[in-house]
Amino acid sequence: MKIVTVVAPVNIAVIKYWGKRDEELILPINDSISGTLSTDFMCAKTTILASPSIKENVFWLNGELQSFDNKRLQNCLKEVRRRANPELPILKWNITICSKNNFPTAAGLASSAAGYACLVAALADLYEIKGDITSIARVGSGSACRSLYGGWVQWSKGVDPKGEDSIAHQIAPVSHWPEMRVIILVVNDERKKYSSTVGMKKSVETSELLRYRAQTIVPKRVEAIKEAILNKDFEMFSEITMRDSDQFHAICLDTFPPCVYMNDISHAIADTVHHYNEKKSSRKVAYTFDAGPNACLYILESEVEEFLSVINYVFPSSNKSDYVRGIKTNINPIEEELKLSFASKQLKADTLKFIIHTKIGDGPKILRDEKHHLLNNEGLPKKSMM
Amino acid sequence: MKIVTVVAPVNIAVIKYWGKRDEELILPINDSISGTLSTDFMCAKTTILASPSIKENVFWLNGELQSFDNKRLQNCLKEVRRRANPELPILKWNITICSKNNFPTAAGLASSAAGYACLVAALADLYEIKGDITSIARVGSGSACRSLYGGWVQWSKGVDPKGEDSIAHQIAPVSHWPEMRVIILVVNDERKKYSSTVGMKKSVETSELLRYRAQTIVPKRVEAIKEAILNKDFEMFSEITMRDSDQFHAICLDTFPPCVYMNDISHAIADTVHHYNEKKSSRKVAYTFDAGPNACLYILESEVEEFLSVINYVFPSSNKSDYVRGIKTNINPIEEELKLSFASKQLKADTLKFIIHTKIGDGPKILRDEKHHLLNNEGLPKKSMM
Repeated sequence: MKIVTVVAPVNIAVIKYWGKRDEELILPINDSISGTLSTDFMCAKTTILASPSIKENVFWLNGELQSFDNKRLQNCLKEVRRRANPELPILKWNITICSKNNFPTAAGLASSAAGYACLVAALADLYEIKGDITSIARVGSGSACRSLYGGWVQWSKGVDPKGEDSIAHQIAPVSHWPEMRVIILVVNDERKKYSSTVGMKKSVETSELLRYRAQTIVPKRVEAIKEAILNKDFEMFSEITMRDSDQFHAICLDTFPPCVYMNDISHAIADTVHHYNEKKSSRKVAYTFDAGPNACLYILESEVEEFLSVINYVFPSSNKSDYVRGIKTNINPIEEELKLSFASKQLKADTLKFIIHTKIGDGPKILRDEKHHLLNNEGLPKKSMM
Repeated sequence: MKIVTVVAPVNIAVIKYWGKRDEELILPINDSISGTLSTDFMCAKTTILASPSIKENVFWLNGELQSFDNKRLQNCLKEVRRRANPELPILKWNITICSKNNFPTAAGLASSAAGYACLVAALADLYEIKGDITSIARVGSGSACRSLYGGWVQWSKGVDPKGEDSIAHQIAPVSHWPEMRVIILVVNDERKKYSSTVGMKKSVETSELLRYRAQTIVPKRVEAIKEAILNKDFEMFSEITMRDSDQFHAICLDTFPPCVYMNDISHAIADTVHHYNEKKSSRKVAYTFDAGPNACLYILESEVEEFLSVINYVFPSSNKSDYVRGIKTNINPIEEELKLSFASKQLKADTLKFIIHTKIGDGPKILRDEKHHLLNNEGLPKKSMM
């Protein structure tokens, strides 16, 4: 019997992945770059138990039994087994997978990247895979490959039709820019979520601007933002991050029929960030939006307290005790001049559900201690999991 | 003494003008194409009185005295006088201009195109200008040049640095496609209007996608939509119209900082149009959005009654008597199956202010009868104007 537990992080792209050149192998049309978030406040956790006595493969997700026939899961498993030493006994055993996300429910935060990174890191440990495993995570969920490293990570699109070179690598570790904080604003939105897999496919099929973006604009941005990260140049970093988020949503709008992920509240957040930066006469905050209305903000530690106080003023909440979660910060009344300049932008209460204050962090962690496992020795989810 | 009165129409672009290559001469970076709307429901009206006895040039707009120093007005006047026969006595006289828009107030509908088309048509009559006058209207307000013709109109960007060939011409008269109707949905929006002149300038300065659009995409679309108009091919016409509106707003979002003109209600309208077309298994309606949240819909006469009934269901109004203005149409309860499919999309009451139902119409009209003049013989606005 073998058992392993892994926690893996979420990552937030600053140069966006949007568009596949191969749907099956999940090969992208452009490079992307992300920051990996600390697992302290948001992470996926997976325990895998392998044993000759397991009768049937089983997959538990957030306390519910899932089909093991899931194609993306099968693709990951197939690739891990293909790479394993064929004499390993474990190759003949069935497995039980138990995963959960510790994200607040109903937050609409993408969980597949952390989930597949976690799964693949656990499988790689069990099946003793050596070398790059990011290309295995990639066939589960494209951006999952970036969650296998901490700090700042680049996913190279590669050129190989088989995708052997479409892998992620670390640009800089978390220790390179320890002042970097991330604030996630979870927006109240009743619209049905529009799948990013479907949206991405439609963009490739219908947006003429997407090809130009992928071929001509992104390569320049990738080099420029890597330089900004390596130089810890927040002015440059924030401009490229915001421009790339805006351009990604522009491409979504250029898709036919259009995919609209940002709503009026998302745009009010972007406007607040630009207005705040203008008031400060330099860029203190950068926004980026994924395929949904929630905002992810990059900001240096020294600016967090004042900026969160401004957010608390512009986006007031009736939830006083639990509005800002994660790393502790004081929320203060904002100074009179700032208040005046934001007065006309203040929205009604509860346009945001809540806020997560977190930071850049490390890649997946393997937890060997029995107390961390989500499964007991019979291969059943522990009580706390149900 | 000479006096003339002109009414001029609004035009709604289907291939959008966005970006100047010369700010002073108002020379665009791409061709644009529009439909001219009937003056029955929306128009600008201008009376100009010229007389040796007028002491000072005067400009009345919507009942209020304006500065005559307005640069765009001066540019139009200068160009008209340059082209006039230098022996005309009128060249030595002062003038009084009196203009009004009959658009519902606070509708946020662009009025400068109709206004400058009207002004220039009136000046051209007074100063006996022969030949093309669209290049004169263009220096007042770019898209005004398209309002000097009825039916379907193309504004060619031209290549001359002086703009001599940046003029409009008619593609097809209103009689070519008499079934074409236009529905304007005026959206309730409290945001401050963001100037299209400023937005356009920022897009040229900051959007890399704009150059690609103007140089590579628009030329193909211009040819394709001209063919669709000449063939009365609504399927093709509507696809290009919607794609070009979406792409224009994509460019606005790709501008840094982004310009956001559409809001959640605008996107709900676009979604309703796509959903309706899907239900009908063919494109029955096309939307287009200018630099604001209001929607302009192109639709054939035969489809208006059912589609407006759907709009009345999805965007209900507490204003029962005056919600749909313009050409009379019956608003009916929609059939059960259609109702079911739109039930989840129904919004709360009064997201729209009102609706204008109009059609494609002719160009400016010169009105010689005294009763039409906005000025009395003393050069003062008639009581009805104040």
